[in-house]
Amino acid sequence: MSSILTPTPPSDARNAVARFDKPLWWDATAEAVVFLDQRVLPTRIVTLSVTSIPAMVLAIRDMVVRGAPAIGLAGAYGLVFALTANSNCPASDCLPALEAARNTLDAARPTAVNLHWALMQQWDHATQWVAQHPEGSEQQLREALLANAIALHDADIACCKAMGEHGAALLPTHAKVLTHCNTGFLATGGFGTALGVIRAAQAHGKIAQVFADETRPRLQGARLTAWELAQDNIPVTLISDGMAAWLMRTQQIDAVLIGADRIAANGDTANKIGSYHLALAAHAHGVPFYVVAPTATIDFTLPNGSGIPIEARDPREVREIEGIALTAPTGVSVWNPAFDVTPAHYISRIITETGVYPADGLKNQQLC
Amino acid sequence: MSSILTPTPPSDARNAVARFDKPLWWDATAEAVVFLDQRVLPTRIVTLSVTSIPAMVLAIRDMVVRGAPAIGLAGAYGLVFALTANSNCPASDCLPALEAARNTLDAARPTAVNLHWALMQQWDHATQWVAQHPEGSEQQLREALLANAIALHDADIACCKAMGEHGAALLPTHAKVLTHCNTGFLATGGFGTALGVIRAAQAHGKIAQVFADETRPRLQGARLTAWELAQDNIPVTLISDGMAAWLMRTQQIDAVLIGADRIAANGDTANKIGSYHLALAAHAHGVPFYVVAPTATIDFTLPNGSGIPIEARDPREVREIEGIALTAPTGVSVWNPAFDVTPAHYISRIITETGVYPADGLKNQQLC
Repeated sequence: MSSILTPTPPSDARNAVARFDKPLWWDATAEAVVFLDQRVLPTRIVTLSVTSIPAMVLAIRDMVVRGAPAIGLAGAYGLVFALTANSNCPASDCLPALEAARNTLDAARPTAVNLHWALMQQWDHATQWVAQHPEGSEQQLREALLANAIALHDADIACCKAMGEHGAALLPTHAKVLTHCNTGFLATGGFGTALGVIRAAQAHGKIAQVFADETRPRLQGARLTAWELAQDNIPVTLISDGMAAWLMRTQQIDAVLIGADRIAANGDTANKIGSYHLALAAHAHGVPFYVVAPTATIDFTLPNGSGIPIEARDPREVREIEGIALTAPTGVSVWNPAFDVTPAHYISRIITETGVYPADGLKNQQLC
Repeated sequence: MSSILTPTPPSDARNAVARFDKPLWWDATAEAVVFLDQRVLPTRIVTLSVTSIPAMVLAIRDMVVRGAPAIGLAGAYGLVFALTANSNCPASDCLPALEAARNTLDAARPTAVNLHWALMQQWDHATQWVAQHPEGSEQQLREALLANAIALHDADIACCKAMGEHGAALLPTHAKVLTHCNTGFLATGGFGTALGVIRAAQAHGKIAQVFADETRPRLQGARLTAWELAQDNIPVTLISDGMAAWLMRTQQIDAVLIGADRIAANGDTANKIGSYHLALAAHAHGVPFYVVAPTATIDFTLPNGSGIPIEARDPREVREIEGIALTAPTGVSVWNPAFDVTPAHYISRIITETGVYPADGLKNQQLC
C-alpha cells in the first residue's frame, strides 16, 4: 500500500525549505502535494509526494499527516486530483467524479470535523464556480480548486496566528504550561493551535517551561511536539502521560492547552485520547484548561459530544513500538480509542480565531 | 556492569520450573538467588543468578526484580552473600560486615519501604541469633539468615493469598477492574497484591474483565501484568495510560486496584507513577479505588506522604524504548519520577493481609 506514496528525492527535501514550518505544501512543478512524513519524525526527515486520491486517503489514514486542521487541508488539496490537468472537457461533467472523491476522502478518518468542513468548502467553491463559468473547462476548475486550497491553507495559518495572540493574552508571565499530542505547525496549515498559543506566548517572552505529554500510543508529543519546540528553542520537558496529574500537584502549572478534533455545539470537545484525563486533573488542581481550535472545528449540527464518532485504531499501535512487541503475543486484548470527549464543564475557555469563549457560550456567539 | 549478573543456562531455566509463579528463588546447589529477568519479559524468558552483594544491588537498581515486596525479599536473600559459606569464623565478628551490606542494599532503591523492612527483619534476626549463639560460626549464621529469608518469602506468599481473599470479597460478580503497573507474582514472593486480589476473584468466578494500564515508562503493565494474566487465562485488555479516565467514563468499571511502595501512617500511598491520576479519575467517576499491600509497606514513622522520597530515574526510560529514540536528540528535557503519592482521601480502602481498612484508619488498627 505504501508504495503509492512516493518519497521525494532527499536533495529536494533539503532544498525546498531550509527549516520546516508546514506539514504539507503544493509543489507546482511536480503537480503534487508534498508531505513531511510525520510517521518517521524526528529521527528521519522524509518527504512524500502525493498525486492521487487513493494516495491521499492513505496519507491521511496512515497518519503521514495528522491533526484536524492539517487533515482538512490535505483533503482540500486532494480534491484537485479528482480532476485532470490539461483537460478541455466541460467542468460541469466533472462534478459527479468530484463528489465521489469528496466522499472517499471524507471517510479517511471519522472523528475530526475539519476534513468534512474543508471538503465542503471546496465542493461549494466548485459548484459555484461551475455555475458562474458554464463554459469552463476541467483544467480551469482544477486551477480554481487549487487556488482555493491554497487560500484555505493561507487562511488556516492566519487563523492560527490569531488564536495564538488571543491565547497568549490569557497566560501569565513566566508561564509553565502543559500540552498534549501535537497541535503545532505539523497539525495545521502552519504555526499551530494550542502550540500556536505557546509559540505566540514565547514571542511575547511569557513562556518559562512547556511540559509535553508523550501521548501514547502514537507518541505525537514525544516525536512531534518536543521536536517542534526544540527546533524553536522553546524550553520543553517531556513526560509520560501518567505523570501529568502528579506534575500538576507538585509544580505550579499555569495552564493546560490542547487542540480539538471536533467540538459539539455545547462545547463538549473530542481530542486525542488522554485529553479527558488531563481535564479531570486540571479541574482537581484548579489549573485553567484551554481548548484551542479554529471555528471550522465546531460542529453545530451536534448538540453535544455524545454524537461524535470515536475512531478505534489498530491494536498494534498499543501492542508494539517501531515493530517491537511490548506485550505477550497471545491472550492479550487491546482497547485503542484514538480520541476521547471532554465535557464542556471541564473546559475553562475555548480559544478560536475570533476570540475567547466560555465552552458553553459557543452557540450564542454565532462563530460560523 | 551487567556482566556480574550471570545468565543461568537456558536448559536449567526450562527444567527448574514448568511454569513460573515466583520472581526469584534460592538455588541450593548453586548457592545463588535466581531471578526471572523482568527487563526482558515477555518476549524472552531469561533467568539470572546472583551470588554477591554488588550483583544484588544491580539486580534491584536495574529492575531485574521490581515490586516492593519482591525487592524486599531480594534484599533479605542478598544479605546472605555478606557471609562466607563454610567459614568457622565467629559469627559475632561478621556483624559489622553484615550491617555494611544492609546499608548498601537499603540504598539500592529509595521509595519502597519493604526493602528496608526486610533488611531490618534479617538484621534483627542476625543480632538475636548471635546473642543466642555466642559460639556460633559465620557458616551457621549464614544458614540461619537463609532460613529466615525463605521463611519471609513463604510468609509473603501467604500474606498475598490472605489479601487476595479479603479483596475478592469486596468485588461484585462479573467484575470489570482496572489495574496499574505490575503487582502480581513477579512483584511479590508470589501470587501478588492487587493482582493477587484479581487472581483470588477469578478463582471465585467473579472476574469478567481486567483492564491493564501499560504503565509508561517501563511498561510493566504491558510486559508483565498482561503476560501474567494471559498465562492464567484471565481475560485482560491492555490500554495506554491516558485511556483510563475515558475507560471509566464509557464502561462500567467496578474497581481500580493498585499496589503500594510505601504507605504513610495517615494512608497517603506512594505507588508507581500514574497511580495518582487513576485515583483522581476513579474519584470523578465514583469508582472504588483500592490499595492492596502487606502491612510491611506501611511506614508508621511517616505521618503523611510528604516525607516519602520519590525516586527520579534515568531520562532514557522516557526518551527511548528498547534503545530506539522516541524524541528529538537535543533540546528536549525529561522529567521521570518513578512514583507518585495518592492522598488518603482518594483511597476507598487499604487491603492488607490482616483485613480491609479505611485509608485514614491505619493508625488505630495497629497492624504491625
